[in-house]
Amino acid sequence: MKPQPARKAHGVDPDARTRNLNRLRRIEGQVRGIAKMVEEDRYCIDILDQVAAVEKALRAVSAELVKNHLRHCVRHALAGHGNPDTIIEELTDALTRGTRS
Amino acid sequence: MKPQPARKAHGVDPDARTRNLNRLRRIEGQVRGIAKMVEEDRYCIDILDQVAAVEKALRAVSAELVKNHLRHCVRHALAGHGNPDTIIEELTDALTRGTRS
Amino acid sequence: MKPQPARKAHGVDPDARTRNLNRLRRIEGQVRGIAKMVEEDRYCIDILDQVAAVEKALRAVSAELVKNHLRHCVRHALAGHGNPDTIIEELTDALTRGTRS
Amino acid sequence: MKPQPARKAHGVDPDARTRNLNRLRRIEGQVRGIAKMVEEDRYCIDILDQVAAVEKALRAVSAELVKNHLRHCVRHALAGHGNPDTIIEELTDALTRGTRS
Repeated sequence: MKPQPARKAHGVDPDARTRNLNRLRRIEGQVRGIAKMVEEDRYCIDILDQVAAVEKALRAVSAELVKNHLRHCVRHALAGHGNPDTIIEELTDALTRGTRS
Repeated sequence: MKPQPARKAHGVDPDARTRNLNRLRRIEGQVRGIAKMVEEDRYCIDILDQVAAVEKALRAVSAELVKNHLRHCVRHALAGHGNPDTIIEELTDALTRGTRS
Repeated sequence: MKPQPARKAHGVDPDARTRNLNRLRRIEGQVRGIAKMVEEDRYCIDILDQVAAVEKALRAVSAELVKNHLRHCVRHALAGHGNPDTIIEELTDALTRGTRS
Repeated sequence: MKPQPARKAHGVDPDARTRNLNRLRRIEGQVRGIAKMVEEDRYCIDILDQVAAVEKALRAVSAELVKNHLRHCVRHALAGHGNPDTIIEELTDALTRGTRS
């Protein structure tokens, strides 16, 4: 079986992409900071607070992705390209699972 | 104003620390992978799935921290060191806020 | 100031409406059951489990609403009626807030 | 097999019980209100907002239960009655599952 080529977005706003890359770079630094806190046996509650901050930052990434997806991919499907029911089902699943699996 | 010294845990199980450090190292790699997907304009839903995987991994980190906190810090406070009401209030706040701020 | 008339959906699948009404009726019964458990000083963890069951049921209600919204209201806006940017912004906000405010 | 008797809390603050009963009574009314909105085909986003309000109210119920549990049941176990490891495991599980199963 040949590997599936990676699926691409039907359009990405350059500003949205930049905002998400900046967020992800910051998140990477935050995760490294949390690892350092764990190594130093820092107070559990203070670490939990940092984990919560990363979770919040990830939600901003997700929100940006959803917005872009609605703006481009869903609009594309609803405009008659591809199957709207499939794309709606897929997005609803991702939202339900994605945010709280 | 002098900076506050970082608060320390009242005890950390070495195994719990190792498990969390491994999780955080993996999470750091996953976050870098997500940034790469964003750079390549990968399909929004596929990126959302990876964000959800990181959120799930972070919850495992939090659960480990909470368990360790109950096992050591809360037990320490309930055994008569420190103020139990304060530590219970603090943990409840962290749990409520931490998981869904 | 005159009261705003309640906003209506641009279309509702009768099956989706029925499914949600059934879910909400069940949820109402579950909430009453939880109140009874609280009155009887039942074990906290057992009550927490029932609260979690209600939260899960509510997420099914939300997922159904989002699906219907995409199928009807968003499609309607993307087809040239109303402002697509507004409706996309509004849905993204509701998803972000709605699931974890 | 005989049915298990319902487990009881090791102590409940009367004020906490009253606050939770009041919350649950309000939630019951909110759920009925949501059912009415669904019946009237109200705008999906407006219904989602009400579902989010109920989710928030349920989290207050959970927080109250957790606080009471720590104050009474966990303290009881950590004071040498029952197995502290079991009760810590059980609470961590409930918190992880309860808030986002």
